Amino acid sequence: MIVYMKRGATEEQIKAVLRRIEEYGNSYNIDKEGEHVLIGIRGDTRAVSEGVFEQLPGVARVIRVSPTWKEVSREFKPKDTSVDIGNGVKIGGGHFAVIAGPCAVESYEQLIKTAEVVKAAGGHALRGGAFKPRTSPYAFQGLGEEGLKYLKMAKESTGLPIVTEIIAINDIELFLKYDVDVFQVGARNCQNYALLKELAKTGKPILLKRGMATTIEEYLNAAEYLLSHGNSNVILCERGIRTFETASRNTTDVNAIPIIKQLSHLPIIGDPSHSTGKRNLVASIAYALAGAGCDGLIIEAHYNPLLAKTDADQQVDGEELKRIIKKSIAIRDIVEEDVSKLYNGGTK
Amino acid sequence: MIVYMKRGATEEQIKAVLRRIEEYGNSYNIDKEGEHVLIGIRGDTRAVSEGVFEQLPGVARVIRVSPTWKEVSREFKPKDTSVDIGNGVKIGGGHFAVIAGPCAVESYEQLIKTAEVVKAAGGHALRGGAFKPRTSPYAFQGLGEEGLKYLKMAKESTGLPIVTEIIAINDIELFLKYDVDVFQVGARNCQNYALLKELAKTGKPILLKRGMATTIEEYLNAAEYLLSHGNSNVILCERGIRTFETASRNTTDVNAIPIIKQLSHLPIIGDPSHSTGKRNLVASIAYALAGAGCDGLIIEAHYNPLLAKTDADQQVDGEELKRIIKKSIAIRDIVEEDVSKLYNGGTK
Amino acid sequence: MIVYMKRGATEEQIKAVLRRIEEYGNSYNIDKEGEHVLIGIRGDTRAVSEGVFEQLPGVARVIRVSPTWKEVSREFKPKDTSVDIGNGVKIGGGHFAVIAGPCAVESYEQLIKTAEVVKAAGGHALRGGAFKPRTSPYAFQGLGEEGLKYLKMAKESTGLPIVTEIIAINDIELFLKYDVDVFQVGARNCQNYALLKELAKTGKPILLKRGMATTIEEYLNAAEYLLSHGNSNVILCERGIRTFETASRNTTDVNAIPIIKQLSHLPIIGDPSHSTGKRNLVASIAYALAGAGCDGLIIEAHYNPLLAKTDADQQVDGEELKRIIKKSIAIRDIVEEDVSKLYNGGTK
Amino acid sequence: MIVYMKRGATEEQIKAVLRRIEEYGNSYNIDKEGEHVLIGIRGDTRAVSEGVFEQLPGVARVIRVSPTWKEVSREFKPKDTSVDIGNGVKIGGGHFAVIAGPCAVESYEQLIKTAEVVKAAGGHALRGGAFKPRTSPYAFQGLGEEGLKYLKMAKESTGLPIVTEIIAINDIELFLKYDVDVFQVGARNCQNYALLKELAKTGKPILLKRGMATTIEEYLNAAEYLLSHGNSNVILCERGIRTFETASRNTTDVNAIPIIKQLSHLPIIGDPSHSTGKRNLVASIAYALAGAGCDGLIIEAHYNPLLAKTDADQQVDGEELKRIIKKSIAIRDIVEEDVSKLYNGGTK
Repeated sequence: MIVYMKRGATEEQIKAVLRRIEEYGNSYNIDKEGEHVLIGIRGDTRAVSEGVFEQLPGVARVIRVSPTWKEVSREFKPKDTSVDIGNGVKIGGGHFAVIAGPCAVESYEQLIKTAEVVKAAGGHALRGGAFKPRTSPYAFQGLGEEGLKYLKMAKESTGLPIVTEIIAINDIELFLKYDVDVFQVGARNCQNYALLKELAKTGKPILLKRGMATTIEEYLNAAEYLLSHGNSNVILCERGIRTFETASRNTTDVNAIPIIKQLSHLPIIGDPSHSTGKRNLVASIAYALAGAGCDGLIIEAHYNPLLAKTDADQQVDGEELKRIIKKSIAIRDIVEEDVSKLYNGGTK
Repeated sequence: MIVYMKRGATEEQIKAVLRRIEEYGNSYNIDKEGEHVLIGIRGDTRAVSEGVFEQLPGVARVIRVSPTWKEVSREFKPKDTSVDIGNGVKIGGGHFAVIAGPCAVESYEQLIKTAEVVKAAGGHALRGGAFKPRTSPYAFQGLGEEGLKYLKMAKESTGLPIVTEIIAINDIELFLKYDVDVFQVGARNCQNYALLKELAKTGKPILLKRGMATTIEEYLNAAEYLLSHGNSNVILCERGIRTFETASRNTTDVNAIPIIKQLSHLPIIGDPSHSTGKRNLVASIAYALAGAGCDGLIIEAHYNPLLAKTDADQQVDGEELKRIIKKSIAIRDIVEEDVSKLYNGGTK
Repeated sequence: MIVYMKRGATEEQIKAVLRRIEEYGNSYNIDKEGEHVLIGIRGDTRAVSEGVFEQLPGVARVIRVSPTWKEVSREFKPKDTSVDIGNGVKIGGGHFAVIAGPCAVESYEQLIKTAEVVKAAGGHALRGGAFKPRTSPYAFQGLGEEGLKYLKMAKESTGLPIVTEIIAINDIELFLKYDVDVFQVGARNCQNYALLKELAKTGKPILLKRGMATTIEEYLNAAEYLLSHGNSNVILCERGIRTFETASRNTTDVNAIPIIKQLSHLPIIGDPSHSTGKRNLVASIAYALAGAGCDGLIIEAHYNPLLAKTDADQQVDGEELKRIIKKSIAIRDIVEEDVSKLYNGGTK
Repeated sequence: MIVYMKRGATEEQIKAVLRRIEEYGNSYNIDKEGEHVLIGIRGDTRAVSEGVFEQLPGVARVIRVSPTWKEVSREFKPKDTSVDIGNGVKIGGGHFAVIAGPCAVESYEQLIKTAEVVKAAGGHALRGGAFKPRTSPYAFQGLGEEGLKYLKMAKESTGLPIVTEIIAINDIELFLKYDVDVFQVGARNCQNYALLKELAKTGKPILLKRGMATTIEEYLNAAEYLLSHGNSNVILCERGIRTFETASRNTTDVNAIPIIKQLSHLPIIGDPSHSTGKRNLVASIAYALAGAGCDGLIIEAHYNPLLAKTDADQQVDGEELKRIIKKSIAIRDIVEEDVSKLYNGGTK
């Protein structure tokens, strides 16, 4: 961390900065740029707050050069992490997996028919929401426990591991009871640290979606909550960010894929259904995400999308899912060399 | 809600749309614009999903014209709501209140000294975080229950109602035990609907902060979760949104103040500390928020900001707080006529 | 266009709306949604201003349902446009082309060496800036006319058509004198309508880059300036938008590729160099853009990037360029079927 | 500028960095933070490109600590600049001025009636667009030279200096012929550097509006183009930025007012008409901008807004303008002490 003093900062002001550095137990180096004094803070600065220095008299700016996360980083663990989500399915470290299924579990019939479609299309796991966080309190909030029951039945029938969203600490026991394979944390709860800390304790694979306005730095810090509390079975997921553009529901931040792969060993998948919000964009964006080097996809699918009750416009049918999976894998194969080259120091 | 068909949509496609409308129990009107057919959905459309129609063949676009919220709206309740937060302090409906205090409760000494400074400066309530949601898991997470204890003691000593952030459903009982007057929901939990539903049951005043990327529409829907579950003691708070500009921590969305006042009867306060992130911007932005017509302010203050452990750079001292309170009230008085005029239909 | 009246709007207020519609020469239809009156404006509404109606007493909202552009649209011309940029190179309509070269023309040696590298790598055209719009007035502003001369020489030597940015109307003659094949309009001038009108008169191929905060709707309107003034040799280019994320220079809006392909017949290429700003992200994002279905790429390349004076960090070398071109074409081939299917009404 | 090397960077990589620094004619200082080497570049770094270093092998990050602008800064000129716009009207340095008038000049009658209304309301200058940059090529593009003629006549009649937008270099002579007092550069041309360089030569007062997605840093650099080319008669203007929020046309970045006042000596005014896009928000946001400490306002006004042809929804009438001017001045007076205190080092 670098503390950049204002032009004309007094000796006394500089000393006050040095005192706070010493209180943190760090050492320092003093340098000059033009008429400005720069104070470099040495040692571990993860617990050091920029604000503590920014507010001291005579300070112009404070610049953090080392990240605040640790265990999620490539520096901590250079090799790719591969997360085992059950029934032989792995994500990351060379394993590309597609999770698919309906936005919401609506009935056993809808779920099992869709699960069979997913399996036939080559999908590796089944998704489906039982507890739905909806913008409006008057919208369908999900089947709750009943939905979990159907998911368990669908897994028993198809062998597909199940992935479903958890929105409250109180539901953890229920999720364990129904043998949920992957606990999904949705975009709105990406920085719900109380939930993350409790989920870490379960040791279960966590699919942590990026928040709509979460920077990559904040996102990796959120993942660090899971790892630093003992759970490294974490799958990241780019699901679109919020920007000024309203032509699609969100903006797919495809840059985030290679950036996160460089910074972190965790697997990252893409969610073209939410990052576009339109069924007729899902295939193109699935291919874009695969081209960017992601480790898998999560796609909303429905045995008959025209009948869906939620997010109806972004669910694809079985035929399209099959084509998307096949082509995404073909594209991911083409880029494999670049991905490992780029992330392992082959190119600057 | 209006369903806008593509040019050349077939009779069959139009009929499929009409069937879904009927399944929702709504009626419709058919019109043409140029070569396009427009189908207006009549009746209550709050539970109707745009996506269900957007995905039907032949549909070009679906436009929602009525909002999905209800009880928060001026149409539902034209008169301003005033929320009583205890010890005679009210916010909204003509009552302008300033909540101030440290970012985090750090010690009893720090809290009580700051509480006295707040009282002397003319503040109406005391804020202070006991449970802190921090970006990094390695940063100070708050004193927890001990912090609540100190807050209760500070209230007993100064008479100031206390406002503190709740981050987990499991903490509700603790908050009730220590007589917290206002349960603050932070920006990161603005759309944590599971938490909102439980908080609604307490009936306590809720200070619901806007999320960093929450649209005004989503924000009012989040508040609707509280009202529709039985709690109308809701105070809204503009605390800055996330934009491309990085010169300040957030961008104060000052437009949101008059927009929300037009749409909703709920009181809305401003948070210039978080919406700027810089102590030397707090006063100017407090005045800006008052000029825009807000019903109060929440300001981070510290008896000696140079000693603060969190958000050190955005806490003001007692002298500055006093000046801010005095001038904000003077400005709010100047604009009072415009505020009531504008929101009560005087000017279009 | 739909004019949505407030609840309780008077007969007189409704009549005032109808009068303005008649003044525009349009007809209307009146309907009700709940307690609100909806007035649909029929006929061509491209010249009708929403604001004229929004300000009338009793009006709640005005919704535009038909776009304001015309000649750029798929409805106007369903078949893909292919732009011939000279020497047998075409972009769009099944032709995938890669334009590459240095950020700025720095010397004849640098340009010709890079041009040879581009040609050997399989590139189709040569780019290079002679007039550089730089954020700081103290940064290198380009070689000007000398740069154009070198570009012409490089074309004569390699046969590659040349693409270079024009920043002022006054330079058009100079560009014509040096036989520039494609006049590039940079992101900062995307909505410089005075420049666009003049460029339309030249009839030359125009590479119109999307502005950093230009919506797709505004972008297509900017292109409409060119077409409506007589020049349909227009190539669009997604070069990244500005968002809250600062981990990369811009955010590649990969969704824009299929969205624009659906709305418009114009070719659209991707610019992974500017949309990332980092050399080690260029390949991954080139593949992402190809996966999304773009018609070509524009990539900053340098025979030795370590020596570049501008945008040094985003220029790739010849070896990497070759790999990027080869793999991008392979990916684009994989997705061809989806692209034509999706944009020609095969799905939804 | 600080070059932050990767962990394990080699001696050779470090030497390559030092060589490039020496080529720029700067000196350096070497330090360590943890396992990373930090190289501080000393001396004037305005012409040094971050990218040149970012791309060198072994470099992790490059951080600019000194801005790239110079003459616009408070460090260069600590005292506020006051711009004289003619007929005794000044902006900045204690002079608060309100520029008002129609969005577009539509006819002499409309302009002169509005000019009289502006004068009667206490306005200091008259605005009105003759050349209008419109999103759609089919929208009204302004009266052109005829508009300038009417503006000159209105000035002769009322004594109000005139402010009007220039969109092309070719129009400069026309603007000089009709004695335009303030040349306005619109948001879309904020970074049209070719235009700025030519305008600098005129020596006329320039009202430089901030672009919709222009950061404060880029904005000050754009102004630096004017100052470094010899024209310091520059007035800045916050007119709203583009964000994810669509409830208002733009988001008023009220934080920008005090931030720019701290960084620059140039006057900055606010434009509540464009930063909101809604007439019924203009007053509240004018007060907000005044509270934030701006040096003036530019407001769209019309003698009868119901008749306006462009931006109809954001123009206020004479009565409202009068109230806005009176109250804005009252608010600006209240905050005067804070403004000068904050920007002159009174508070940190």
